[in-house]
Amino acid sequence: MNGDEVLLDRIGRVRARMASLDVDALLLSVGADLPYLTGYRAVPLERLSMRVLPAEGDATLLVPGLEAARVEERPSVFGLETWGETDDPIVRVDELLGGARRAAIGDQTWAQFVVALLRRRSSLELVRGSEVTGPIRMRKDAAEVEALAAAAAAADAVQQQLRDGTIPLEGRRESEVAADIARGLIDAGHDVVNFTIVASGPNAASPHHEAGDRVIRSGENVLFDIGGTREDYCSDITRCVHVGEPPEAFAELYDVLHAAQAAGVAAATAGTPAQDVDRACRRVIDDAGYGEYFIHRTGHGIGIDAHEDPYIVEGNELPLEVGHAFSVEPGIYVPGTWGARLEDIVVVTEDGPRALNQVDHGLAVI
Amino acid sequence: MNGDEVLLDRIGRVRARMASLDVDALLLSVGADLPYLTGYRAVPLERLSMRVLPAEGDATLLVPGLEAARVEERPSVFGLETWGETDDPIVRVDELLGGARRAAIGDQTWAQFVVALLRRRSSLELVRGSEVTGPIRMRKDAAEVEALAAAAAAADAVQQQLRDGTIPLEGRRESEVAADIARGLIDAGHDVVNFTIVASGPNAASPHHEAGDRVIRSGENVLFDIGGTREDYCSDITRCVHVGEPPEAFAELYDVLHAAQAAGVAAATAGTPAQDVDRACRRVIDDAGYGEYFIHRTGHGIGIDAHEDPYIVEGNELPLEVGHAFSVEPGIYVPGTWGARLEDIVVVTEDGPRALNQVDHGLAVI
Repeated sequence: MNGDEVLLDRIGRVRARMASLDVDALLLSVGADLPYLTGYRAVPLERLSMRVLPAEGDATLLVPGLEAARVEERPSVFGLETWGETDDPIVRVDELLGGARRAAIGDQTWAQFVVALLRRRSSLELVRGSEVTGPIRMRKDAAEVEALAAAAAAADAVQQQLRDGTIPLEGRRESEVAADIARGLIDAGHDVVNFTIVASGPNAASPHHEAGDRVIRSGENVLFDIGGTREDYCSDITRCVHVGEPPEAFAELYDVLHAAQAAGVAAATAGTPAQDVDRACRRVIDDAGYGEYFIHRTGHGIGIDAHEDPYIVEGNELPLEVGHAFSVEPGIYVPGTWGARLEDIVVVTEDGPRALNQVDHGLAVI
Repeated sequence: MNGDEVLLDRIGRVRARMASLDVDALLLSVGADLPYLTGYRAVPLERLSMRVLPAEGDATLLVPGLEAARVEERPSVFGLETWGETDDPIVRVDELLGGARRAAIGDQTWAQFVVALLRRRSSLELVRGSEVTGPIRMRKDAAEVEALAAAAAAADAVQQQLRDGTIPLEGRRESEVAADIARGLIDAGHDVVNFTIVASGPNAASPHHEAGDRVIRSGENVLFDIGGTREDYCSDITRCVHVGEPPEAFAELYDVLHAAQAAGVAAATAGTPAQDVDRACRRVIDDAGYGEYFIHRTGHGIGIDAHEDPYIVEGNELPLEVGHAFSVEPGIYVPGTWGARLEDIVVVTEDGPRALNQVDHGLAVI
């Protein structure tokens, strides 16, 4: 975990942005902003943990009494307060807000706390927490990039096991393979498994298919989209493995996808609008006649959250900057027939795009 | 999953309560209300899934296009609409709200959607979704009680393995034992592992300690608080195992805890205020001189959510009803020394309290 000086530097940048947005206070609960700025991750429960960061003056981390033992105290970063089992923590949040008129609240904060706060303080104007923190969290420092690279390497190791037969596929249920992947992600160094998508045959035509009871057979493509969290930073990688030689039509589709993903990665340079990475992928797929089958955005930022700014989507004109980290994951999905997706995590560097995932991008045939 | 008639019956009761609370629309996203009323569980992502249930007229389930394949369509229960990757779903939610002035929004909905909705419709008055759904979800029907009982039995099986030595303890790290528990919960029938608290020696004095690197030694108590989700319903059970004979002082403490938990379960009868179950546990612990060491409420409701209404806490005067299901989990925590907690899930029946967990309540000695 980061030292106080890293956290204080981030808080300084957050406060500068609060000033520019005329935001009087930042309220953070569950989600990535809180660990990014305190080293503490709130438990997603009905018992509120919330950091109140006023534009000026002392910051307070308010936690349920029985969570206090989990908090690493950092007096230079925040004052720690606890509330008891029969207290209403919103009363204290309201006090800590002082004269604030406009506050930013963390994107994933539970609505029940927003409702309770507005009931107590109906004049409070709320804006999204990510309007304040998004642009700051987007720019990863060197330590964060290395944390993402280490998570990527851990996920790569499991994809490699799927490609070389260490994790067998044929004749097994998707859910059995997913359980092997989950174990593999932990064995490779993840602390938490976030998702283990195993989509075989026609199931791969549904982008968010979850592993089910379907048995994997010879002659089928299997899509693996897997990720976890390692020391607070997320991994996310998609590869495909074909059981037996692929039909020519599928091999052609995959070649198009492969070229599209490479074009997206190559476009991920500093100064390029985020939407141009999406367009670079989409152009290759459109030109090959598969445009109607690429039904989602190209990617999402990644860091402490599995999905965060910047989003790689048409309409996002944000210029990419050195330190931005995001997925490049085009897909081609032919309903009822088959589908494929190819995904790397890419970081924008001064020397151009750096793909953190190192596993071969070709269609593995086993 | 439940048939349409079960869902429509629940929706009828929800609408009656909306009318009594003068709520014009119910907005549900992530959390348990949505599967309770639609059979569909929203993915906790920045892509909004939301059900809009007006007081009268058709209900709509709005989901991201690429989640549509995961939705089991139920035309008699809701109309399904999708939004595309470059659409703003809040625009559509606002349209679906029509002339609504006052809406209830699901407790766990992400704040970013609340903020976006209020920005578009600043006159909308919001109340907590659980004010509408809580009293209805609290009363479990027979099928729900059996689902909770099946989840409890699956968690019991793992606690039994910890008591009979099938999962070894001495000389192992808490985290290694936690990994065995996670595998055991899945093997016993859970679909998801929710938590695997393993707290050894002085760690058991912190109620929410997570499994860490500490190695379990002879002469120590180990607290296991474990739970998962099986077919949409949650388990949650705490037991303690002492490695080697316990010191007399700890055995005395445990006897007090055992009596307190039994008193709490016995108090869980229809018509009893929820807080009286808390008081029944607390009185036994207070009378034995350990009052200052019981630092949390006695319990929480359980169902599709791991924590839901009714909360068993001082100040909750709600009379318990047949079908209410909740934990009874007093604890005694002596900082720096040791701690213990004992927990069952209890359902209020016409014949009195029914503890779903069947594992022996005594301090196991291995």
